[in-house]
Order: sequence, then C-alpha cells, then structure tokens
Amino acid sequence: MRFVRAHATSRANFADSGSLVTSAAVKHEERRRPHGGAPIRLGLLGCGTVGGGVLRLLTKNAAEFRRRVGVPIEVRRVLVRDADKPRVDELDRSLLTTKVDDILTDEDIEIVVEVMGGEGFAGDCIERALSSGRSVVTANKALLARRGPTLLELAGTNRVGLAFEAAVGGGIPVIRTIRDAFASDDVVELTGILNGTSNYILTRMTEDGALFNDVLREAQDKGYAEADPSLDIDGHDAAQKLMVLAMLAFGARPPESGMLIEGIRGLDAVDVKLAGQFGYVVKHVAVGKDRGASVELRAHAALVKKSSVFANVSGVLNAIRLEGHALGPCLLSGRGAGDMPTAVSVVADILDVARAIVAGAPGIVTGARPLAARPLTPPSEIVLRYYLRLAVADEPGVMAEIAGALGRERVSLSQIVQTEGKDGTAQVVIITHEARESAVGAALSALADKRFLRAPAVLLRIEEG
Amino acid sequence: MRFVRAHATSRANFADSGSLVTSAAVKHEERRRPHGGAPIRLGLLGCGTVGGGVLRLLTKNAAEFRRRVGVPIEVRRVLVRDADKPRVDELDRSLLTTKVDDILTDEDIEIVVEVMGGEGFAGDCIERALSSGRSVVTANKALLARRGPTLLELAGTNRVGLAFEAAVGGGIPVIRTIRDAFASDDVVELTGILNGTSNYILTRMTEDGALFNDVLREAQDKGYAEADPSLDIDGHDAAQKLMVLAMLAFGARPPESGMLIEGIRGLDAVDVKLAGQFGYVVKHVAVGKDRGASVELRAHAALVKKSSVFANVSGVLNAIRLEGHALGPCLLSGRGAGDMPTAVSVVADILDVARAIVAGAPGIVTGARPLAARPLTPPSEIVLRYYLRLAVADEPGVMAEIAGALGRERVSLSQIVQTEGKDGTAQVVIITHEARESAVGAALSALADKRFLRAPAVLLRIEEG
Repeated sequence: MRFVRAHATSRANFADSGSLVTSAAVKHEERRRPHGGAPIRLGLLGCGTVGGGVLRLLTKNAAEFRRRVGVPIEVRRVLVRDADKPRVDELDRSLLTTKVDDILTDEDIEIVVEVMGGEGFAGDCIERALSSGRSVVTANKALLARRGPTLLELAGTNRVGLAFEAAVGGGIPVIRTIRDAFASDDVVELTGILNGTSNYILTRMTEDGALFNDVLREAQDKGYAEADPSLDIDGHDAAQKLMVLAMLAFGARPPESGMLIEGIRGLDAVDVKLAGQFGYVVKHVAVGKDRGASVELRAHAALVKKSSVFANVSGVLNAIRLEGHALGPCLLSGRGAGDMPTAVSVVADILDVARAIVAGAPGIVTGARPLAARPLTPPSEIVLRYYLRLAVADEPGVMAEIAGALGRERVSLSQIVQTEGKDGTAQVVIITHEARESAVGAALSALADKRFLRAPAVLLRIEEG
Repeated sequence: MRFVRAHATSRANFADSGSLVTSAAVKHEERRRPHGGAPIRLGLLGCGTVGGGVLRLLTKNAAEFRRRVGVPIEVRRVLVRDADKPRVDELDRSLLTTKVDDILTDEDIEIVVEVMGGEGFAGDCIERALSSGRSVVTANKALLARRGPTLLELAGTNRVGLAFEAAVGGGIPVIRTIRDAFASDDVVELTGILNGTSNYILTRMTEDGALFNDVLREAQDKGYAEADPSLDIDGHDAAQKLMVLAMLAFGARPPESGMLIEGIRGLDAVDVKLAGQFGYVVKHVAVGKDRGASVELRAHAALVKKSSVFANVSGVLNAIRLEGHALGPCLLSGRGAGDMPTAVSVVADILDVARAIVAGAPGIVTGARPLAARPLTPPSEIVLRYYLRLAVADEPGVMAEIAGALGRERVSLSQIVQTEGKDGTAQVVIITHEARESAVGAALSALADKRFLRAPAVLLRIEEG
C-alpha cells in the first residue's frame, strides 16, 4: 500500500513542475515515472495466430499478471488489415482498427506489440513507437537481423524497452539468457540448430534413410515446410537468427552481407549414411565466434558427433549452445517455432517491459551493450575439420593424386575410406585434420578438372564439441 | 540526466514527509525509492572460492555493471571466519570483518550476498537481512530446500528481493527461466540430471564398463566426489535441488519428508550393460510432476532412451527439462557446479536485484507465486515402465512363476530376455508396460521368498521422453 501511495505522490509532484514543457513531453517524461496504479495499455499490431495467442494468454492470466506487475495490463487497440475477419473469442472487436495512427498517436499506449511480420511497414511502426517514448515487443526476426542495431540505439536514446525473445528460437529463452545469465560473462562462441524445417528433414534422412526431395515434399504436405521453402532450406532463416544472436552475444554490428550461408538443399542420402559410419550425424548449424578483431558467422550443414547433445536434438526442435568464458557451455533446447511457444515468449517480454515501466525504468529491459561495427571473418580463414567425398574412376593412381593435391595445400588427413567400386566408380571419403577452408578449397579446385573425377566433390564441415 | 534528476527530486520529497516515522523506518522505506545516483552497497557473507569469484567479477566488470544498473555496485563489508587467511587480490582487506552485525546493522547495505553455506547461521543471517528490508542473493540449496517457502514469504512481506539462481544447476539459468520465460505458462513436469558426481560415475560406467566402486574411488581421488559421498550418490543433493525447483515451478510447499529418494550406490555394471542392449542409458534423475491435488517428486536412477537428449548429457554436466503446457519441452544444460559458474550466477542475481532497487521495486526479482501446501503423491501411486532383473535357478517352470506373479498384479510385460545360464544361474530381464509402482512391488514381494531366486530382484524405473 505504501508503495502505491508513494509513487502516486511522485507523479503528482512531477505534474506540478511540468508547466514549462509541452503536454506531449510531459506524457513522454511521465512514462519514466512510476505508475500510480493505472493500467499499462498495449497496442497490438497484428492479430493472426500469434497475436490471438497473446490475447488468449493475457486474458487467461490477467489476475496473476496483475499481481506480478502491480497494475493491470490492458489491450487498448488492435491493428488488423481486415476488420471483418473472424478472430479469437478473447478479442473485444470494438478494439479493432485498420489505421496504425489510432495506436501510434494514442498517448495512453505505453507498449506496442508487433506480431504482423514483414520488414518495411513493421519497421517503420516500431521506429515511430520507440521515437515517441513507447516500449516495443516484437517477434520479427527478419526485421531485427536487418535493422536491429538501429532499433536498439533508438530504444537506448529514448530510454524505452525493446524486447524480442520470440524472434529467435520461439519458446527457447535464449535472448534473456544472453542478456541476464551471461551478464558478467563473455559469450566466446555460440552454435545453434536454428531452423526446424531443416532439422526435421535431416532427422528423417538420418533415421529412415529417406531422400531429401521426398522428405521435403512430405514436409510441405504436412505444413512443416512452406510452399517456397528457400528461406528455411537454403539457410537464410538460420542466418537471420544468428545475426540477432551475434548482436547481443558479441556486441557486434556485423555488415549485412558476406556471411557464409549454405542450406541443406540437395544433400545426398549417401553422405548422411557415410557420416553415420564415421560416428557423425548431419545437422544444419549456425555458428558464431568472437575472434576479437572480427566475428566469425556462418550457417551451413555440418557433421556433429553422435555422442554430442546436438545429435539428439531431433525433429522440429531447435537448440542453442552458448560457450561462456567463465560459465562454460550452456545448452538450451525446445520448440523453435509454433504459435503458442512464440506467444508465450511475447507475453514474457510484455511482463518484463510492463514491470520495468511500473518501476519507472523501461529502458532496463533492452539491456544490450553498445554495439561496435566489426567485420566478418572471411570464410577463407575458417579453420575446421572437413568431410570430403569424391566419386572417382576405379583405377590405379587416383588415390595418390587426391592425397597429393591435399598434401600440397598442407591439408592433413585423419581418416580415408575407399568403398568398393560399382560400374567402375569408387567413392573416396576423407576426414581431414583441422585445416583452413581456403587450403581445402584450393586442393579441391586442383582436382576439379581431373579426368578421373566423375562428379563434383562433396564438402561438409565438421563441428566438434 | 533527466532520469537521475527526477528521482533525486522524489527522494527529497520523501525525506520531507518523513517526520512522523523513525529514522530506521525512513531508511527502510527509502530503499523502495529510486536511487539518486548513490552506489548500491553489498555485504558479502563468506569469501571462499565462490565469494572470491564474485569479488573478481564485480571488479573486472565494474564499468559495464555501472552502465547496466545506472549506479556503481560497491562491496562494503565482507564477513569471514578468519581475517588473516589469504584471499583473492581483488579483496580490499580493510573490508573484512568477523562480526556479522557489522553487516546486518549497517543501514547503507542494501543487498546481502550469502555464499558461506550451512543452514543454521546462514539461515538466521538471511532472515535478519530480509526482515530489515535488505534484498538477499544466496547460493545455498540445502537451506532453500528446507526453509525456502518461509524465506520467500519473508521477502514478500518486506517487499525485497530474494534471488538464488546459483542454488540449483550452478551456471544453468533455470530459476530465471521458470520465473520469467514461463511467466504465462504452467510447468506441468520437470526432469533433471541434477547431481554432477552421480552423472560422472554413471557416464564412466556406461562408456568404459567400469565398476561403481572403482569409479567412485577414482572420482574421490580426482576431487570430483567428496570423502563422504553420501549427499551426492544417495540422491539427497538432487532431492534438495528438486525441492527448490518444485517450489518455483508448481507453487508448491511440499512436506519436508516422504519424497522417494534413491541414489546410485551399488548399481551393478550388469544392469548398465543390459540397459544398453535394450536401447537405454542409466542416469540419475530428479522428477517433478504437477498432479493437481498432489505433487509427484522423486529422485532415483532411471533408464532413459539412448536417442533422448538426456542420454548425451555426460560427465559432470547437469540438465533440466521443463515441460510447459503451451511452451512444450524446454531443455537447459550446462555445468551444474564449479566456482566460476556459480559466481557468474550469483553476480547475475546481484545485477537483477540492484537494477530493481534502482528502479524502486526490489521485490519484483523474487517473483514467486504464492505457495500452497500440497501433499506428495505417495510413491506407491507412481505409474511408470520398469526394468526388472532376476537372477534365478536355471530350471523349468521358473519363467512361468515370474510371469504369473506379475500377471496376478496386472503388470503387463513388454519385453523379456533370459540370458543363457552360467553355473546354473540365469538372468531374467523384463521391461514392463506402464504399471503402478505398488503393483510391481507386490509382484516382487510375492517372488522374494521363492527358492529359485538367487539374489534380490533389481528394479530400475524407466523415464520416457
């Protein structure tokens, strides 16, 4: 009781001294004042499945949230494109609007929740919201990958919150783990299985020996994969998420292009099988390393050890491994997508921001360290172990030529297996010791036009640990 | 700048109106006022390896923490038993005291950090700190398992923070995940590998076929296991951590005794090997389920599927899987113990509490829902699949008697393997379908005094998922 009264007093005092500033500025400044028991009002941008889930959770848990935040949370306005479409029962249809200005000019709205997706319009709405002193919660990964640094800066300048737990890893609390649990530690490395569609396809290929195209078609039929699956299976989705994680984990503002991005399209079932024989599972990984002067960021298929925790992250699950300087390894795994996990993460952010507003310091939620522009480590400088497969003519001298080409580039070999030839073609599989990607690439180039090579060489990177 | 000025104003106003209350009460009340730029002052109880790590992190990251909290964090006093012992370089020895009252009566100390361990004295210090309006950060799992509900209540009454991330799972951010990420969801079930010593022993038994006693002795030599290993290998450490997790995850205040607690002492290498043949790995697990009227809590060895993520959590790593109603499964894994992971978690808590104090609402860190006294599900009512091994005389009719005893209790069998007899003794291994623990127990009791049984039957529970 004393708590509420004291805050009301401080608010009144402020209003008395406000004669020199405009009413908008008072409003803006007042947002940093502790609340006097008035509800925190939200504007919701978008009311699809995630937005509907948010409304449902806010309604169902209203009493509990009021207890936790100290004041009620109230949805004041909901922006949709089509006001006549059916929506969740929890929506009071009188809140619907098709004009974003109904939200962005409403002085009582303190939190803008963006769950529409898309980059241009959504980004502009978020910028306007932050600039006018409102905190923002968003699940928009593509937008954050591109405009994250600018938006974080804008939130910092305006001392408001910008929260986006749902943008990476759906229901996995990775953003708050980097922000809060690693607050006194440095993340030196992170590795993620960040794309559920790719992981589902790879799991089916591994467990059932299925072919890439068959599983992709099946996944599309089941609705796990989009009709245009490029964002998922060509690695762009994972790369966007990696970009957001790198920003928080390394305080880096890497350039927009130049990242090594490969997907799993066209992965041959033979390589999945052979990897298994060497004790590995093929996964699509996104890897970030803080290398001081540069940040190493890459997304591609990779062989991971069967005994690693990552190997058993199967189906549509996602996982993220953070390697802390003092904390050591910390692995988080869970549903990387889905309407309800995403809605739960959005609501967790709303509660954080609301509590910070009530406490008078919405900015504490953003919590990013100042971002520094840092170049990407050139892909040629990556040092890894490699899996190489060459389909070659089954004739004398071939192995010597292959070994010679690798040796000239000082690529050292750990394991070599040549399978028995079929129709005059043999498969040579090589696991290298650690080598520079440029050296491996040069050796493969030197072999590329050899008469004995029956198909382009296959290269897969190996992620240890 | 405006931020600081405005808060300073509100503080001054408060002081003006304080004439009717005592100075101590003003101090107490003032703690809920936003800071005017003054440092947050800590009292540190204990300066062993964890306490030293905390001092080191606070010193190293002072500038960054100041930015994040808004004001400096200052260690004001450090309680030790022996003021002459060597300590970390980061310690200013003039801060040392051997009298706890130097900390608990110092009105400027706003956060008490307890890293001494032990229950009686540490518990009394924490109670006094909370009662006098100070927030507390502790890593003391044994104390929380016993007095957690009382301490949470005390923190609630005094509207101060009580944070204890380091008490469970060392460097794994499980407490804040339950508190924040699951804020709008219900944890319906949790399973943990919570004891690093047991997991190390089981990993060595699984990977190298080693014997329990040999690995234990080796672990003691290496310092992974205590000279008296009972707390670890008899399941008590895991049970205490489970108690703390259940309190937060289920809002339950279960009775102090009556939990099913078993360790791994005396586990037979034969069962580890046979489990492997059925596709399982033996792990020591702590399991909690919200069953509405009761909470099911148990800690014991169990068979987990080789394809589960848990199976690959090896060595001294810990892992916790939370099953949310909407979020689905969420797995966290990392170092469960160790001085630096623990210190990092303690410092993360200090930052949370400090930010909340600066914001004027230290209580928001505690975040526990009201606890309800709830009974434990009686172990007899547990429903699981079971692994049973019976060493029996290799003679006709034995299998019929075993199957008959299980059948009479309506325990249905999924797999049966009888190994070839050696010296007239055969091993019968049975994997049951789901059954009530009481039914399996009754069947084994009925078999216990049979002439053909060569040794007490072995029962291991199976954890799916």
